[in-house]
Amino acid sequence: MQMSQAQNRYKADLRELQFLVFEQFGLRDLLSKEPFAAWGEDEVRMVLDETYKFATEVLGPLNGVGDREKCKLIDGKVKTPTGFPEAWKKLYEAGWRQLSGSEEFGGQGAPRTLQVLVEEMFSGANVAFMMYPGLSLGAAELIDHCGTDEQRKLFASRMYGGKWGGTMCLTEPHAGSDVGAARTTAKALPDGTYKIQGTKIFISGGDHDCADNIVHLVLARIDGAEAGTKGLSLFIVPKYRVDASGNLGQPNDVKVASIEHKMGINGSATCVMQFGEEDSCVGVLVGGVPHQGMKQMFQMMNYARIGVGIQGLAIAGAAYLSALEYAKDRKQGSSITAWKDPTAPRVAIIDHPDVRRMLLGMKAKVEGIRALIVKLSMHQDRATALGGKNDEQAAYHQGQVELLTPIVKAYASDQAFRVCEDAIQVYGGAGYCQDYPVEQYLRDSKIFSIYEGTNHIQALDLVGRKLGQAGGKHTQEFFADIGKFVSAKQEDAVLGASVKNLAKAQEAVGSAAFQFLGWFKGGEMAKVPLNANRFLEMMSELAVGWLLLEGAAIASDAQSKLTKDQKDWFFYEGKKQAAIFYAQNVLPEVVAKAKMLGNGDKSALEIPDEAFATV
Amino acid sequence: MQMSQAQNRYKADLRELQFLVFEQFGLRDLLSKEPFAAWGEDEVRMVLDETYKFATEVLGPLNGVGDREKCKLIDGKVKTPTGFPEAWKKLYEAGWRQLSGSEEFGGQGAPRTLQVLVEEMFSGANVAFMMYPGLSLGAAELIDHCGTDEQRKLFASRMYGGKWGGTMCLTEPHAGSDVGAARTTAKALPDGTYKIQGTKIFISGGDHDCADNIVHLVLARIDGAEAGTKGLSLFIVPKYRVDASGNLGQPNDVKVASIEHKMGINGSATCVMQFGEEDSCVGVLVGGVPHQGMKQMFQMMNYARIGVGIQGLAIAGAAYLSALEYAKDRKQGSSITAWKDPTAPRVAIIDHPDVRRMLLGMKAKVEGIRALIVKLSMHQDRATALGGKNDEQAAYHQGQVELLTPIVKAYASDQAFRVCEDAIQVYGGAGYCQDYPVEQYLRDSKIFSIYEGTNHIQALDLVGRKLGQAGGKHTQEFFADIGKFVSAKQEDAVLGASVKNLAKAQEAVGSAAFQFLGWFKGGEMAKVPLNANRFLEMMSELAVGWLLLEGAAIASDAQSKLTKDQKDWFFYEGKKQAAIFYAQNVLPEVVAKAKMLGNGDKSALEIPDEAFATV
Repeated sequence: MQMSQAQNRYKADLRELQFLVFEQFGLRDLLSKEPFAAWGEDEVRMVLDETYKFATEVLGPLNGVGDREKCKLIDGKVKTPTGFPEAWKKLYEAGWRQLSGSEEFGGQGAPRTLQVLVEEMFSGANVAFMMYPGLSLGAAELIDHCGTDEQRKLFASRMYGGKWGGTMCLTEPHAGSDVGAARTTAKALPDGTYKIQGTKIFISGGDHDCADNIVHLVLARIDGAEAGTKGLSLFIVPKYRVDASGNLGQPNDVKVASIEHKMGINGSATCVMQFGEEDSCVGVLVGGVPHQGMKQMFQMMNYARIGVGIQGLAIAGAAYLSALEYAKDRKQGSSITAWKDPTAPRVAIIDHPDVRRMLLGMKAKVEGIRALIVKLSMHQDRATALGGKNDEQAAYHQGQVELLTPIVKAYASDQAFRVCEDAIQVYGGAGYCQDYPVEQYLRDSKIFSIYEGTNHIQALDLVGRKLGQAGGKHTQEFFADIGKFVSAKQEDAVLGASVKNLAKAQEAVGSAAFQFLGWFKGGEMAKVPLNANRFLEMMSELAVGWLLLEGAAIASDAQSKLTKDQKDWFFYEGKKQAAIFYAQNVLPEVVAKAKMLGNGDKSALEIPDEAFATV
Repeated sequence: MQMSQAQNRYKADLRELQFLVFEQFGLRDLLSKEPFAAWGEDEVRMVLDETYKFATEVLGPLNGVGDREKCKLIDGKVKTPTGFPEAWKKLYEAGWRQLSGSEEFGGQGAPRTLQVLVEEMFSGANVAFMMYPGLSLGAAELIDHCGTDEQRKLFASRMYGGKWGGTMCLTEPHAGSDVGAARTTAKALPDGTYKIQGTKIFISGGDHDCADNIVHLVLARIDGAEAGTKGLSLFIVPKYRVDASGNLGQPNDVKVASIEHKMGINGSATCVMQFGEEDSCVGVLVGGVPHQGMKQMFQMMNYARIGVGIQGLAIAGAAYLSALEYAKDRKQGSSITAWKDPTAPRVAIIDHPDVRRMLLGMKAKVEGIRALIVKLSMHQDRATALGGKNDEQAAYHQGQVELLTPIVKAYASDQAFRVCEDAIQVYGGAGYCQDYPVEQYLRDSKIFSIYEGTNHIQALDLVGRKLGQAGGKHTQEFFADIGKFVSAKQEDAVLGASVKNLAKAQEAVGSAAFQFLGWFKGGEMAKVPLNANRFLEMMSELAVGWLLLEGAAIASDAQSKLTKDQKDWFFYEGKKQAAIFYAQNVLPEVVAKAKMLGNGDKSALEIPDEAFATV
């Protein structure tokens, strides 16, 4: 099978992005005033256009290259695939990494919502490459927020600008989901620095050839600190030691022991790192405070989790548009209306009902997840825009960010994989071949449900922390927002039946939430993790169904002012049909899931370990 | 991450295989009498033991090798991975390819059920390798059944024995699911042979270095034949021409233009084949009859489809046992009963409820699908055992084979992918790395839903042909079998609640079947393909739920005679819990799906093509 250049090109639907920010989520409310005074509608549109160009012209062409060439470990140093160091340089030179960064370090102070959409396009074009600047930005933000002023100026400034890279070093061979079991040690030295010793695994970008230095953020236990997560501290451990002016000195003893051979994201180096195994490895405490490692890391982790949600969205979106293009192009079989006539003309496969079903299902998931992620980032931006005023409103927005974060991470990552599965199915045999991009999308996307906290960790965060946070206030406000929409639109001529499915789904989620309360109180603790993933899925489907229908209602109004010869008429029609599809084909499952959850099946708890198999 | 040798070893649970054939499906009824007179219980057990040994010792170690080395096209010839030609030789020398073959050509006349279990183990150990002998056997059986006596003796005999290989050449660049659009031509030559010209794609084992000759079965249109599938004929086109004694002569002009670079099954060469592009390529009509190509091919295709179902089962089973082993071995976190104590001892991850949930879900799917496949093969064997007597019984068994074939192919292949997804999730980050086998299982398994008729083709076969076949008799008999079980067991103390879920699922499937009848009759034809996949899934879940519960009822009886210090007590407990899990966590979805199907949502039909995206 041969692929045309066009078919492997990353595509985004800018019209859809504009709809979300300007028509559905009201970004204009925040533009051209503090703290986003420099950002008007024109600037936002311009950045979307330009970053899309960057995504397709610079990052996209390296996506297949990175997958085929992979990273290599040569003499202890990681060599990234051809073109990666140059792309890194271009990315920072163009300023696209500093869109929403603070102006103190050269950032442009854009709304986070804009950055989210840019991240989607960049990751959609080349998710493996974007791991390097992605983790680097996260590490820079952590130092910016938690570091001493000296650390901020020395490290964060250079990391924001791409001169230095950064990593997060949490996981150890025996401490993955169980971070608190980490064994890496830190010994205080007389000069206030610490001697770091230990092994970290699955370190993305643990080494690379894109930046002059790499700043590792390493979680370690200071000698004598207590067990578990509470005894962990966070250290800045640069690959090359630096003086106060940022000049590079001697290397620390930071070794890449090996790199993983993975199923996907092959352009991203996943390293086993050894700190201070033979020689001296020196680090400084982030912010100069001990035993705050988990708290500091968590701040960054929330962004990282939203970041993984964006990765899921990005790959799902790319896979959808790729499959759509193929379905419009590929001719096979005749129309269902002429199925008995072998001489009937061949049609594009988008004509076949089953292909339409897959495509519309993909579209609904992609656009619903995108709406959810933009909703979340708008909560962040609105909280920022309040600038410390109106505490109640700020708490509302911040509460929604807390509640939606695990949902975004887990649902987007799980569904990205499903969307890729459908994309391959639309392609048929061609989709299984490396000539087309969808099989790489699927391989790349499988990691999203695992890293930055597995999706079960997200589900536990949701049911164990977020659901009851602030006395359940965040959850109640989330339900109230949906309730308002249901009241307003349940009698809508076009969408009413679908909105009623939303109301049923909400009722089901509400009753399931009370189940959890009962299990917590009634001592049936094991049922909480047993049902947590299912509950997260239900909450996600409720949220996505709501935002799709909200968008559809706006689209329906806008469409009524247009005629069928206008391109936007079709755009709005697509928004409506995707929402209806989701409401009719996904939301009813929420009700079924609530019933199953309520049945209280305990078979998975009751089966003895020896009964799983005789081998 | 490092893998111990043991963790990458293929494993099968022989106790489970024995349970199915001897305790649940009554293979003993057929043993030690005609036509299986040579096969007693001891022989069956011995073959299972020996083939398991062959799978783990010969085939399993080459699975990773094949994936890494892949096939190479050198000077127009395919070089298979290291060890493949030797494994081919050992496989045929040991006689394992001729278990159920006809005795005329050296076959051992075993029940097909035994062969199915052997195929599962061989494909589970190395599915890519097994493509070569698998397609070869299919091609041999086709010639055996449809060929002239001369063709049978010349070709089939050598293909059964592994001296020559075989392929099926159907797909063309513009004729995949739409086989009838094939453009390969056949021109009659004066000596009764045909000149073949055309290009075929996705030809598994189109060339390899395991056998002396390769016999291609090529679908082509004789000049002047009608359009569509009815005008196609099937030709025997050997790589090297042969004389009547089987001596190899001049090569035919059969070229491998290229091999595909795929997501998985990399040890299997997927070829683009050119027949008669430059020079002469001569073939003979299978059976000497023209225009019967599709009919002849279909006979083989049914076996091939069941074969893909077995591949799905095989990979799912291997992935399950691999994840189970890891879950018992890998320590992470503390028990849920001590979740607030950081000093609590670390436990194996199988202790965590979410891991148990995934494992039991995998076990239920694997064992349910295995039961379904064995059920199908037992129908085949019982029909064979009737030997032409008792037409009504034979028609019943044959009808069930027809009905279950698309279900086995589609459900096993779709769920294999899901089981692999869960297996990776159980492994966590390690599962994403090539040190462990599960990421390869996932990549290998993705093709199963596509080849040998996509799963949508299977769904159309089910709703368009099988459901109403013989006036709906096969479907009614299938329902009657389930109904009998429900009546007998719905008040069972342990399983009763689950059996009631089965009854509800059956009712739901029944009402959905009537929906289809309405759409066919009411002229709403497009709703048939739109809902076909969902219906196939419902029927599959019903069938699997039934057979799991049937097995559980048998296990429950057997268990009541044992005490907890006996290994089998745990084996039977596992059968029960898996059935309960499926009945409580999957069967209720059948009811939800029926409701959705009944809603008649048409969004995917109504959305205009231009509304899917603006790009």
